[in-house]
Amino acid sequence: MDDRFRQYLIGLSECLKRISDLVAECKTLAGIDAKISLKALGLSLSGGDEKESQVLLKEGIGSEYPQLTESTYVASDTFGAIAAALPDGGIVLIAGTGSNCQLINPDLSTSRCGGWGHLLGDESSAYWIAQKAIKMYFDHEDNLIPCPFDVTFVKNTIFSYFKVTERGQLLNSFYAKFDKSHIAGLCKELAMAAIKNKDKLVCHIFKEAGEILAKHIVAVGPHIDKKLLVCKGGLHIVCMGSVWKSWELLKPGFLGVLEQKGQDVGIKEISLMTLNVSGAVGAAALSAKHIDITLPIDYSSNADVFFHSEIGSSTNM
Amino acid sequence: MDDRFRQYLIGLSECLKRISDLVAECKTLAGIDAKISLKALGLSLSGGDEKESQVLLKEGIGSEYPQLTESTYVASDTFGAIAAALPDGGIVLIAGTGSNCQLINPDLSTSRCGGWGHLLGDESSAYWIAQKAIKMYFDHEDNLIPCPFDVTFVKNTIFSYFKVTERGQLLNSFYAKFDKSHIAGLCKELAMAAIKNKDKLVCHIFKEAGEILAKHIVAVGPHIDKKLLVCKGGLHIVCMGSVWKSWELLKPGFLGVLEQKGQDVGIKEISLMTLNVSGAVGAAALSAKHIDITLPIDYSSNADVFFHSEIGSSTNM
Repeated sequence: MDDRFRQYLIGLSECLKRISDLVAECKTLAGIDAKISLKALGLSLSGGDEKESQVLLKEGIGSEYPQLTESTYVASDTFGAIAAALPDGGIVLIAGTGSNCQLINPDLSTSRCGGWGHLLGDESSAYWIAQKAIKMYFDHEDNLIPCPFDVTFVKNTIFSYFKVTERGQLLNSFYAKFDKSHIAGLCKELAMAAIKNKDKLVCHIFKEAGEILAKHIVAVGPHIDKKLLVCKGGLHIVCMGSVWKSWELLKPGFLGVLEQKGQDVGIKEISLMTLNVSGAVGAAALSAKHIDITLPIDYSSNADVFFHSEIGSSTNM
Repeated sequence: MDDRFRQYLIGLSECLKRISDLVAECKTLAGIDAKISLKALGLSLSGGDEKESQVLLKEGIGSEYPQLTESTYVASDTFGAIAAALPDGGIVLIAGTGSNCQLINPDLSTSRCGGWGHLLGDESSAYWIAQKAIKMYFDHEDNLIPCPFDVTFVKNTIFSYFKVTERGQLLNSFYAKFDKSHIAGLCKELAMAAIKNKDKLVCHIFKEAGEILAKHIVAVGPHIDKKLLVCKGGLHIVCMGSVWKSWELLKPGFLGVLEQKGQDVGIKEISLMTLNVSGAVGAAALSAKHIDITLPIDYSSNADVFFHSEIGSSTNM
């Protein structure tokens, strides 16, 4: 996740101030007296599954902003996404600038795969797809790994996106002026054009991205509660991040892996969903649940199923 | 190469000042009057093969330090290494914190493979080996790619080296406090212990590093001048960087690839060499050659052959 360490990068004090400012803004928007404490504050943050972060944030709010809230619940950003879409848990599979996979079972037990940032993971993320395309082009030019597909389209798209005339100039964007989001932006350019011209190299990279996304599901497979597998629609997966906009390019790889390995971990049916609301809705629900309050949430309107398939039959919804 | 962009990072002005200071220091050491200009200055620098850098450095010296030298020659650090060891060219294969492969033919025509930094290449470098070990351990823990070898030794070495008690704490060393050289330092710890205990996972990673190093040689293969292939001792390769200290661990992979693919590009015999002198000796030779002066260099004492093999027979020297 690209924001994974933002609380570390800006420092705890600034992070707490921003949280306090956001709460004040929400109270104004909701027409609530600024002096009234919240019953519960739910923070669903990238990196929020680390116990150390949870303690720092909770204790920091308690000491710096004691009037802010009576109770604080801190969880990973993935928790908020699942809680917004599914009352009994499920899986969230993120493929945005970064990537991550989180399972939450009905009994709140969890399992995670990935989400380790661009230097140790984030496979199938937009950054990963962009880097992969550039690397395959470099390896082809170097004759280190000759590419089995024509690299012309990928090369031209890279040069045009980064405004360079020779590949050595790309190093500036990767080192002296590294900007992960900007590099990740190449992914969209590749995807948009590839949907039109079916460029074989781009299709190959997205297929591999789809494969690895499905491998994340298979990786947490042994920990999935049977209830999540046998419910109506099968295993529900909340798909977040801009890479999912290229589902048609990911699909062959994604389904290929599930067809091959899904049944080994009991996955016979899947429903892929997109959220219509912010993960903050889930964070609010979790913080309320934490103090034994159930918020009146209409889950059916919070998320839509965009793909459904019985594994082995591949019937598209 | 880790220093690839140092001239950009410190800025051209500071870079020129450091070059001037170094030259002044050399003159003092050599007992030469500080006011006397050099006949030729040879700069063999990481990134020095980029025409833009060459022009900036040459013009900068000419305008800022006109008394420094009558002539300036700028080349990549790889050029200096080859020129110090081999009068007629050859290959330099770097595996230090970064990695790179450069061929220079007797007619000064060149070919290069790799050297694109840790985000786009540097395969088989110390950073790459360290990152690979950490990534294989992470993927195993995630159940994303279960490791075919026991990860215990690698895990313990990682935890001990980075002084952490759980893997999430490693992210600090990769993101908030990224220090490539420190991460690369893990490579030495893994190698030292693996030479003793023959840990299968470490041996596997180094074998793969050896394979990719050999693939760099094969990649520049089609451009190698026949004279370099048929001379006494066969193709001479100057091996630079600390990863070569673990040659015994690299050897199975390195020779395996050359046995399989070397003959396709005419490589029938190789001599691996280590430099006994700095690449600066080669830079001086090149700068002299540039103004038609031949320096009296004893090449036989500048480098030693540490491994010789006829491809297909694997006779170790």
